[in-house]
Amino acid sequence: MKKLWEKHWQLDQQVEAFETGDDLLLDQKLVWADVAGSLAHAAGLKEMGILSQKEFTQAKRGLLKILLLAKHGEFTLIMGDEDIHTKIENYLTDHYGQVGKKIHTGRSRNDQVLTAIRLFSKQQLFDIWVAAVHLADAFLCFAKQYEYVPMPGYTHMQKAMPSSVGMWASSLTASLLDDIVLLKAAYTLIDQSPLGSAAGYGVPIAIDRGKSAKLLGFGAVQSPSLYCQNSRGKIEAAVVAALVSLAQTVNKFASDVLLFTTSEFGFFTVANALATGSSIMPQKKNIDAAELLRSKVNIILGYYNSIVGISNNLPSGYNRDLQDTKKPFMEALAMSKQICSIAAFLVQNLKPNRENLVAAMTPEVFAAHQVFDLVTQGIPFRDAYKMAPPKAPLQGSTLQWITDVLHRSTHLGGPGNLGLNALQKKLAAERHCCHNATMQFTAAMARLGVYPASRSGGIAG
Amino acid sequence: MKKLWEKHWQLDQQVEAFETGDDLLLDQKLVWADVAGSLAHAAGLKEMGILSQKEFTQAKRGLLKILLLAKHGEFTLIMGDEDIHTKIENYLTDHYGQVGKKIHTGRSRNDQVLTAIRLFSKQQLFDIWVAAVHLADAFLCFAKQYEYVPMPGYTHMQKAMPSSVGMWASSLTASLLDDIVLLKAAYTLIDQSPLGSAAGYGVPIAIDRGKSAKLLGFGAVQSPSLYCQNSRGKIEAAVVAALVSLAQTVNKFASDVLLFTTSEFGFFTVANALATGSSIMPQKKNIDAAELLRSKVNIILGYYNSIVGISNNLPSGYNRDLQDTKKPFMEALAMSKQICSIAAFLVQNLKPNRENLVAAMTPEVFAAHQVFDLVTQGIPFRDAYKMAPPKAPLQGSTLQWITDVLHRSTHLGGPGNLGLNALQKKLAAERHCCHNATMQFTAAMARLGVYPASRSGGIAG
Amino acid sequence: MKKLWEKHWQLDQQVEAFETGDDLLLDQKLVWADVAGSLAHAAGLKEMGILSQKEFTQAKRGLLKILLLAKHGEFTLIMGDEDIHTKIENYLTDHYGQVGKKIHTGRSRNDQVLTAIRLFSKQQLFDIWVAAVHLADAFLCFAKQYEYVPMPGYTHMQKAMPSSVGMWASSLTASLLDDIVLLKAAYTLIDQSPLGSAAGYGVPIAIDRGKSAKLLGFGAVQSPSLYCQNSRGKIEAAVVAALVSLAQTVNKFASDVLLFTTSEFGFFTVANALATGSSIMPQKKNIDAAELLRSKVNIILGYYNSIVGISNNLPSGYNRDLQDTKKPFMEALAMSKQICSIAAFLVQNLKPNRENLVAAMTPEVFAAHQVFDLVTQGIPFRDAYKMAPPKAPLQGSTLQWITDVLHRSTHLGGPGNLGLNALQKKLAAERHCCHNATMQFTAAMARLGVYPASRSGGIAG
Amino acid sequence: MKKLWEKHWQLDQQVEAFETGDDLLLDQKLVWADVAGSLAHAAGLKEMGILSQKEFTQAKRGLLKILLLAKHGEFTLIMGDEDIHTKIENYLTDHYGQVGKKIHTGRSRNDQVLTAIRLFSKQQLFDIWVAAVHLADAFLCFAKQYEYVPMPGYTHMQKAMPSSVGMWASSLTASLLDDIVLLKAAYTLIDQSPLGSAAGYGVPIAIDRGKSAKLLGFGAVQSPSLYCQNSRGKIEAAVVAALVSLAQTVNKFASDVLLFTTSEFGFFTVANALATGSSIMPQKKNIDAAELLRSKVNIILGYYNSIVGISNNLPSGYNRDLQDTKKPFMEALAMSKQICSIAAFLVQNLKPNRENLVAAMTPEVFAAHQVFDLVTQGIPFRDAYKMAPPKAPLQGSTLQWITDVLHRSTHLGGPGNLGLNALQKKLAAERHCCHNATMQFTAAMARLGVYPASRSGGIAG
Repeated sequence: MKKLWEKHWQLDQQVEAFETGDDLLLDQKLVWADVAGSLAHAAGLKEMGILSQKEFTQAKRGLLKILLLAKHGEFTLIMGDEDIHTKIENYLTDHYGQVGKKIHTGRSRNDQVLTAIRLFSKQQLFDIWVAAVHLADAFLCFAKQYEYVPMPGYTHMQKAMPSSVGMWASSLTASLLDDIVLLKAAYTLIDQSPLGSAAGYGVPIAIDRGKSAKLLGFGAVQSPSLYCQNSRGKIEAAVVAALVSLAQTVNKFASDVLLFTTSEFGFFTVANALATGSSIMPQKKNIDAAELLRSKVNIILGYYNSIVGISNNLPSGYNRDLQDTKKPFMEALAMSKQICSIAAFLVQNLKPNRENLVAAMTPEVFAAHQVFDLVTQGIPFRDAYKMAPPKAPLQGSTLQWITDVLHRSTHLGGPGNLGLNALQKKLAAERHCCHNATMQFTAAMARLGVYPASRSGGIAG
Repeated sequence: MKKLWEKHWQLDQQVEAFETGDDLLLDQKLVWADVAGSLAHAAGLKEMGILSQKEFTQAKRGLLKILLLAKHGEFTLIMGDEDIHTKIENYLTDHYGQVGKKIHTGRSRNDQVLTAIRLFSKQQLFDIWVAAVHLADAFLCFAKQYEYVPMPGYTHMQKAMPSSVGMWASSLTASLLDDIVLLKAAYTLIDQSPLGSAAGYGVPIAIDRGKSAKLLGFGAVQSPSLYCQNSRGKIEAAVVAALVSLAQTVNKFASDVLLFTTSEFGFFTVANALATGSSIMPQKKNIDAAELLRSKVNIILGYYNSIVGISNNLPSGYNRDLQDTKKPFMEALAMSKQICSIAAFLVQNLKPNRENLVAAMTPEVFAAHQVFDLVTQGIPFRDAYKMAPPKAPLQGSTLQWITDVLHRSTHLGGPGNLGLNALQKKLAAERHCCHNATMQFTAAMARLGVYPASRSGGIAG
Repeated sequence: MKKLWEKHWQLDQQVEAFETGDDLLLDQKLVWADVAGSLAHAAGLKEMGILSQKEFTQAKRGLLKILLLAKHGEFTLIMGDEDIHTKIENYLTDHYGQVGKKIHTGRSRNDQVLTAIRLFSKQQLFDIWVAAVHLADAFLCFAKQYEYVPMPGYTHMQKAMPSSVGMWASSLTASLLDDIVLLKAAYTLIDQSPLGSAAGYGVPIAIDRGKSAKLLGFGAVQSPSLYCQNSRGKIEAAVVAALVSLAQTVNKFASDVLLFTTSEFGFFTVANALATGSSIMPQKKNIDAAELLRSKVNIILGYYNSIVGISNNLPSGYNRDLQDTKKPFMEALAMSKQICSIAAFLVQNLKPNRENLVAAMTPEVFAAHQVFDLVTQGIPFRDAYKMAPPKAPLQGSTLQWITDVLHRSTHLGGPGNLGLNALQKKLAAERHCCHNATMQFTAAMARLGVYPASRSGGIAG
Repeated sequence: MKKLWEKHWQLDQQVEAFETGDDLLLDQKLVWADVAGSLAHAAGLKEMGILSQKEFTQAKRGLLKILLLAKHGEFTLIMGDEDIHTKIENYLTDHYGQVGKKIHTGRSRNDQVLTAIRLFSKQQLFDIWVAAVHLADAFLCFAKQYEYVPMPGYTHMQKAMPSSVGMWASSLTASLLDDIVLLKAAYTLIDQSPLGSAAGYGVPIAIDRGKSAKLLGFGAVQSPSLYCQNSRGKIEAAVVAALVSLAQTVNKFASDVLLFTTSEFGFFTVANALATGSSIMPQKKNIDAAELLRSKVNIILGYYNSIVGISNNLPSGYNRDLQDTKKPFMEALAMSKQICSIAAFLVQNLKPNRENLVAAMTPEVFAAHQVFDLVTQGIPFRDAYKMAPPKAPLQGSTLQWITDVLHRSTHLGGPGNLGLNALQKKLAAERHCCHNATMQFTAAMARLGVYPASRSGGIAG
């Protein structure tokens, strides 16, 4: 298919294949986003009189038709289509004439691509946000259910002090709440409209960037124009850094599950629906899902490195290198959503083995507590510490006695006072905040006739 | 010096040297922070009756004395001192007896270290925040001074469209404003008090974590206890990710300066105070400072990788690996402050070469503008685009004519409407916000008698 | 399709989709490699009497049939197929009965997967090796063609001393020769047969690992068994580190091309077949291919990080995390081959602009040479250096004069003595070495009836 | 102190501090290397008649005097000294006049720095090579001592099949042997002399690069000149990639030690000399050394990223950014040597707990063996696999019975045939190869009067 810029020469085919790379697949996911961007841009052109009312109607019809075709797999990029943006303009020109030739007035592919990616990633971030809140809630439910089930606390991988299943699980909720702070900051950056920055230097016609930003549900106009292009690789990196943090939390969860389900620890059992076997050893029941949750932070970290590295040492303005941030960025987004969802499924299919956990509360776990008993008798801490570590717990490690010990740590964050209600309130606030942001975006898209919520996008009934 | 945990065995010396690593140097910078943490902890112990009023006064006197000694270089870690925390407890015990043996009641080195690092990095973040705002302001001043000095805009490293020095510089201000959003989010995470989480599982005595958090100027108590340790490597990573973003902006600036000061471009001149020569070529005037600004994002990115990598795949609870996040974290903080400051110095010593810039505005830079001229005559954009690109600008590239062209892009973010006032307002708001946060922290420290603002810390007169 | 390990429970579908990931696509490329591994393993089972001659013939027929089906797109993995290894065993069992149930005797999926990946990556490394030698040769041809075409040499992005197009291009050849040293070292590691290590702990039957290694063209048997699994993530990393080095060379080339083809430098022109245009600016001719060559080192570096990170902190033995090294590894291999090929195409379509290059040899380029002129008159170097830098070249910058200057640097590696013949000899030796290794492997595969040279694999006529 | 290039302007002090960074400390370690490079360069200048015999003698005396001063801490860089290279030239000029002004004839700081770093890192690589061989040997001794001590083999962190302490330890030897292959390849690259490449474009006088390379013990002359500079960041990266591989092996060892010494596993005990305690929990005995061995791969990986990132996207020729590769490179080298040494100490202080190990060989570990028993009775593998996994081992898990099981896996790499003798032979060959390379280098240095083997360098008696 002809390129937008095509004149008297043709790009070598081998080079074209190299330049296109995975874009044919990736761009397919951007159809709805590019249609939305084009609809908002067309509305602006109509207001300026560049598109007549009739042309605008044609543009809208054509663009929504493209969505419909895409939904049915009939708008598929093939080698030779430069990208989704070219294909859409060409479609409009082929089917509606003049309006296709006019639609690109006042924009460049640079801001067009950027707009589509921003819309797409906003949608993805909403999904991740929801999934992270959902996962945080799953941990909290688990913490509530097993709040005082005892569990040794470890440092240096050695038994340290008494802890609880509630402590363990609710720490993961707290971790996710921090991750969400980072996600929201990254969201603020991505919620800026690049549309109208053109090639990075604006256009000499009176477009209304505020209007198109509003139509697309953006929180702000990104300005000056050059910064739109210069932020490529930087804003993506900011988002992926937040996803690294999220993946770190998932990694901690998965690392613990894998250690605590070894036959040597035996603290938890995972439901069969999450276990696989071995091709050679009939006895094996492996929790591959946890291992693949554990690995993902490294994949996302690799993507982060690629994205930052690509934009380093490049001069201002668009450089084609930046296209190569698209794949790691889109994959990091998809992967993040998925690991939140699988991790939630895993925690919902996890069961503490109470007997093993109680049995693991061996005397040395209480050594520090015995020091504190001496302290309360007036012995200075360091002296108490130096007295020989006791061979046996003060009274006896019955479940009731251990539970009492847990309850003795009443300060905020101690096993006797985990602050689960406070966590629940924070989660409710996050859920609310996330819901509002999502609704605002969905409403803007709906006004344009675009329904991005379904994976492949969709059109107005 | 004896270890806090020392009993009947001794650590091998070679192993001790390995474990200590650079900690002797790094911990020296943490003296004030550990003193502050210990003061707040001691205040809590007094309230609980674990320290008598007299012991508390001794503790306070001893801790402030340590600050004074450190200020004069007389409290220096040597091989054999396990770390600053051990050295301080031992000093108190040696000089004040009982109180030294009691000061560790209700805390562990785990939360103690964490508290010191958090206080230290909060102080560093304030400095970076100030430096980033200062740098953003330097770019904005530059943008105002040369708002309409023409400069070709580039894409793919080729001349693209008319731009301006103002556009270039103000884009860097906008970039820093985004970086500050990330910094503030990371700050929120680091502004949580880990004190009292002990080894990660709390203590069986009724400490008041809210009180000590408040005394130390923290915005919140980090809870549950286990999350304090599990957030090590994660919160540091979040901070360093924000610093990567900052360093990306500095990298873009430096990359541009180095390209635009080549003799081939010749757009800017840098003052001699920033230039160095060659050992062999007498004619050389190199801008090494810009090159070393450019490189730093890669150093900080390396630190980020180390920090994230170290904490990956580790089970819950403190693991000594995490100590190895201290050096990259502290170096990333120091480096970030420095590059903001040097970059500001560089932009203040940069001068556009107006003649060269005007001469660089060759006809092809205006090709898109000519397309828009045709568009305003009613020719559809794509048709106008396909007409042969003009050999010469429509009228003539006099400075006045070029300036008029720049003014034609009146939409927000265009060269004719950079929104510099809006940027200025945002900067003022950031300056205010940063000032408030800093003052709050400094006041809390002052109440404890600690003055972290001076690099080596200090004590109350 | 049923799993090899399937018994009384079923894996949740959502979890299965998560665990399968991109494996369905990736494994498709491994069909020929797994068939080859299975053929060698079957040969061993026949020798041990575990397979009868008839069963072996069935196995061979079935496996080659699979290759044929795959070639025609009729052996395609779908969701539910666990992986290619399961699908192949199931196919044999479905079509040939007993032999399918026996083929897995004495191996595990762990060593089977590893064997297939090793064979696949050996083939890829051969292709990369050839492509790297080809690219090195393209640079050398370019160097010979323009050996004495003058070009300023730069340091700190400023003109430094006289250099030549020959110097520039031949340096890239030298760089690739170093990369090939690293490739070959990595190849040595990957050229070890893991087959028969089973799950990492061997099998209690007398398999002949040396025999199967030889049948598969491996240079050595990897031993002890546990190391086969423990080397996953490590050997892949070693290979990708070599590919990073290769990509660094390509990055240097592309970075230079992009700088030297700016209108400001104008040193080279790239043929239209490699250039693309802009959607908005009719005058643009961009060398996107060079930009996308430049970016790739960052993608490959990201993959390297993922691979190393995944295997860090994991205990000995196979962990499913390691599966996630497959995609970055396979993509890094494919990408490396492609960038060598595109870079060669680019250098073959590059033309120095002699006039611009000569014009760029301005007086200051010769300042150091004038110092040396003074040195030859007996003035100590540092004194000569301090004499005022000359305003004009000693004689005159005619092409002949400049060429003479270039010829004055007669030491090895100077512009007058680039050692192109030595480079050519080294390249010839590499070509020979690469050819031999490739032939040896291809011959081994051919003996098994497998033709991996074609991308999708193939079968004996 | 005055700069070599200093003329009519002065570098701003803040900028100088920024540019100097840690160089004052790092360069102190390069004194011997720069002296060696200067001695070889001076010898060349004497042959060319640029230095008289007397001047050469002065240069030699002065340079060796510098070594002596450095040894006694009397040649210490302070802020204002640009770097070690400037300081040395200035010292010669101050003390010996003319010869100091002549010594820089025919070289640039660019090749001078590069030469010093190469010499320094060659010496470091020899140390690492020795340490890696020593560590490999320590693992092998351990493997021999406990060759048939049973130990469960794990996959997915679950018990899989019977293994042995010998298998575990000898796998680490094999891993190191692979790492050494990579080290040697990187060594080949670093063993090229850059001396005489000057600023990257050679010099117009007839220096003999082959001669100086030989005097310095280099294996080859690096050529063309430009490649010397272009290989900065690339060759360092190649070395550090090999160090990452080494650190991966150490990480695997440490990860295993930490898991296997948990109280839950209890497979090994570590001597007290390697253990530390807790500040709060009196019972703790932590193996911090193992944790800090485990973390280092991430530090080195971070350095690798910095080094590669710094050189990416930079145009040909020296760029000052490359200076920032020095610190990560030198730290990675020092760290690698140290972790090999500490890891060897750790393995020498490790003791298997035979009873626990035998007790851990629970029935399910033998499930695959029971399948093989059925296979030998003629039942197809997959059918045998599907028979219910046995509740108990066939005969009884006495130590003798288990040992017999281990002996049944007689193929190469199985627990019954670990190939320890072959590993020993390979190690001996490596030791020989390493010894030869080291001796060759030491002899070359000794001929120059330089003794780099001592850490701070030294001079001839």
